[in-house]
Amino acid sequence: MVRVSSLDPTIAARLKRDADGLVPAVIQDVGSRDVLMVGWMDDEALHRTLSTGRGTFWSRSRQAYWVKGETSGHTQAVREVRLDCDGDTLLVLVDQTGPACHTGDLTCFDADRLL
Amino acid sequence: MVRVSSLDPTIAARLKRDADGLVPAVIQDVGSRDVLMVGWMDDEALHRTLSTGRGTFWSRSRQAYWVKGETSGHTQAVREVRLDCDGDTLLVLVDQTGPACHTGDLTCFDADRLL
Repeated sequence: MVRVSSLDPTIAARLKRDADGLVPAVIQDVGSRDVLMVGWMDDEALHRTLSTGRGTFWSRSRQAYWVKGETSGHTQAVREVRLDCDGDTLLVLVDQTGPACHTGDLTCFDADRLL
Repeated sequence: MVRVSSLDPTIAARLKRDADGLVPAVIQDVGSRDVLMVGWMDDEALHRTLSTGRGTFWSRSRQAYWVKGETSGHTQAVREVRLDCDGDTLLVLVDQTGPACHTGDLTCFDADRLL
């Protein structure tokens, strides 16, 4: 499914989306180089991320767009966006304000180490 | 769908898989801190990654397991594996031998910058 979007068609043509019209977006801090979180973007979330410079995602659970930090104030100022060789994953480098995780951890990967 | 796996049940119980039984695994170089690639793991791929110390994935296109570097020699020695706060994404820190991308680029995100 592809929702209506203002995404640049030359970018849209390179995206390979899953059955729900989404690609995973890896969010990395441009300063610490920590991987902060992974969110999901459809064409319009990517368009908003590129055009507003704010990390914007599609919530699979709520089926709605959300802007990182909209309620918490822990915003992501987007510095760089890259598409991978297969066109099915994004890497977004950001200046993160405050902790990136809703738990208060700096990253979403801080709490559960398997190895 | 969850394929038969030898994954530790206490880890399996924390995983939130997509409809195909998969979670994305972000692969980061432990030295350069570059995000190298994103692969997909089911329970058994994660089990093999944890038990062999080699980055092991499920290929969605070929519907088969693959070990990074098996044919190219560009192996990933796994140093750390983390599960995110939602249990639906893995972060794997590796010592990457050679370029991580099948194109010969150091990372899968080198070629296509959108912003």
